[in-house]
Amino acid sequence: MRIISLSLKKRSYDIAVGSGITGYFGRYLNKLNLGSDAYVITNAPVKKRYGQGLEKALKKAGFSVRFKLIPDTEKSKSIERSSLVVRDVAAYDKKRRLFIIAFGGGVVGDLAGFIASIYKRGVPFVQLPTTLLAQVDSAIGGKSAVDLSEGKNLVGAIYQPRLVFSDIKYLSSLGPRELRCGVAEVIKYALIKDPALFTYLEKRLKDIFNLDTAAMEYIVERCSRIKAGIVSRDEKEERGLRTILNFGHTAGHAIEAASGYTKYSHGEAIALGMIVACDISRQMGFIDQPLQGRIKSLIRNAGLPTRIERVPLSGIINAHYRDKKFIGTRNRFVLIKGIGRAKVTENIPLKIIRQALEQLQKRDPS
Amino acid sequence: MRIISLSLKKRSYDIAVGSGITGYFGRYLNKLNLGSDAYVITNAPVKKRYGQGLEKALKKAGFSVRFKLIPDTEKSKSIERSSLVVRDVAAYDKKRRLFIIAFGGGVVGDLAGFIASIYKRGVPFVQLPTTLLAQVDSAIGGKSAVDLSEGKNLVGAIYQPRLVFSDIKYLSSLGPRELRCGVAEVIKYALIKDPALFTYLEKRLKDIFNLDTAAMEYIVERCSRIKAGIVSRDEKEERGLRTILNFGHTAGHAIEAASGYTKYSHGEAIALGMIVACDISRQMGFIDQPLQGRIKSLIRNAGLPTRIERVPLSGIINAHYRDKKFIGTRNRFVLIKGIGRAKVTENIPLKIIRQALEQLQKRDPS
Repeated sequence: MRIISLSLKKRSYDIAVGSGITGYFGRYLNKLNLGSDAYVITNAPVKKRYGQGLEKALKKAGFSVRFKLIPDTEKSKSIERSSLVVRDVAAYDKKRRLFIIAFGGGVVGDLAGFIASIYKRGVPFVQLPTTLLAQVDSAIGGKSAVDLSEGKNLVGAIYQPRLVFSDIKYLSSLGPRELRCGVAEVIKYALIKDPALFTYLEKRLKDIFNLDTAAMEYIVERCSRIKAGIVSRDEKEERGLRTILNFGHTAGHAIEAASGYTKYSHGEAIALGMIVACDISRQMGFIDQPLQGRIKSLIRNAGLPTRIERVPLSGIINAHYRDKKFIGTRNRFVLIKGIGRAKVTENIPLKIIRQALEQLQKRDPS
Repeated sequence: MRIISLSLKKRSYDIAVGSGITGYFGRYLNKLNLGSDAYVITNAPVKKRYGQGLEKALKKAGFSVRFKLIPDTEKSKSIERSSLVVRDVAAYDKKRRLFIIAFGGGVVGDLAGFIASIYKRGVPFVQLPTTLLAQVDSAIGGKSAVDLSEGKNLVGAIYQPRLVFSDIKYLSSLGPRELRCGVAEVIKYALIKDPALFTYLEKRLKDIFNLDTAAMEYIVERCSRIKAGIVSRDEKEERGLRTILNFGHTAGHAIEAASGYTKYSHGEAIALGMIVACDISRQMGFIDQPLQGRIKSLIRNAGLPTRIERVPLSGIINAHYRDKKFIGTRNRFVLIKGIGRAKVTENIPLKIIRQALEQLQKRDPS
């Protein structure tokens, strides 16, 4: 088990990474003294596959356990669902020593984190992520969000967990599309911060898709370490450091919105967003064409899309201008000046953005 | 206009107190640079009486204004209402430079503060309190809460406003019961922290109920200063300092709950709670009988209840043991060791609590 510390003074916490470590989870929790009653928010497939093991580990460590199932869909991440679940929390919380465990992927983590932040003005919570995307990204850093009918992720909090416990073993049940979704974020970390990780990905993509334990441990640990470092220095995205984690997300979110959130998974949209950001970076003279090609190859080899079909350009540009990533009316992109060298850039000429998006719709010559 | 600073590093803010100062409100907001679009949460009676004046002041300073009316009742402070209002905020928020103004009493302030804390993980908000209770207490310090059917105030945040702007003029439309409700909190401040304020209240109660401007300014300023000082040193109630603001609230909340939140207003319940806390203080040997009598007289002279009718004792004790103010299974009371000298005390023998509650039900010999 490898331990990464995320330093935030009194709110510091550990990220534990390892394979088959759930047996140690209860002991870890005991040290943290979070409460006696574990309220586990999860979904049916995760509970069916791993619920018994978790329950055993928790009970052995002396905790009472209650599972709360939410539907395994993005729709669970709504303000209405939050109201229902927080009422269930209140009904369960008799002994007043309750803490919350998010046991699942990004949707479960977002909903559970938000509920933990608002119930009694904040109760302790722990992330027990079961997808690659959650282990490398969403479970770390305390950002939670739920959707309104008026827009995605419009309601939420920055509220840190007390522990992130990433058991690689949970990844073995991921389908290939879910796995690719996580790999897209791993590529993001490599591009903004870690040339060695980029090279590793180029060489070991096959091992990753074969769920090789050592490879998975390596990438989860690397990404956790990068994210922990950034969040430690800029928890609330006030210093412009945390912003680089949005690499590929500006155009990515616009593509998701313009395609009605159905055509592309989050990871696929981010892959397309990274293609756009790299093209803008090249047009701005930050990177050269060969490097752009190398990045595109990695994304393609990971089974992620590198071009877009039938999403209207104007829709993307409109969605883009409604995105949370804008400050006022200026646009803001995270670009790269080389592998591992991110640079936040504002006021990109619309012509360049448009050209990058048009490029996305062309067939590759190769 | 008197300005009190509440110091919380980057989140410090001013509390402005004065009579007829709403004309300066827009200018004050301009300096703070919170946004261009004011989303004003209020209720129909407040809007009818003061809406036009506020709108004029805001528009003159260049802000766009939207009023959102919520029903003038405690029921507005629900998680369901929060969902509806936050969706309305999202629908209004096109230009992305929105900030929220809480224009009303405690209910409006609680709901608006909670919504400001969760929308886009926090947007700026300002308290423009129109009741004495809100001006001296609830508008200051950033605590917000909404109710669940499972219990009151179970969901919320600690999220500071960017300005509290207390125009004494708004108090002129308060009914006597609302006024008394605020006076109960003023008495609380005197008892826990300010002997001079206590003497002032003994002498000037009549002026206060006649809404004498100088008297109102004095008490709002004194209380704001006390609360600002305490919140600055213990924002999140982690150091045991902020706890003393709960003087009278432990038994008060139990009395409210046991009487189904209808018989007594919040201020009346707090008055009864202070009577209980003083009786416990006397039984513990912290204060003597003459002082207890003097406090009781002040509460009675303010038109607040000093004894209870037909609320079953067992109901109070049960409600009491479910209250948020408990840590684990120990009880915890704020007591006083003299006027202005609060002391947090745990594990009061049940017999003493019971006796204090029984005392409440007896007719005064006087």
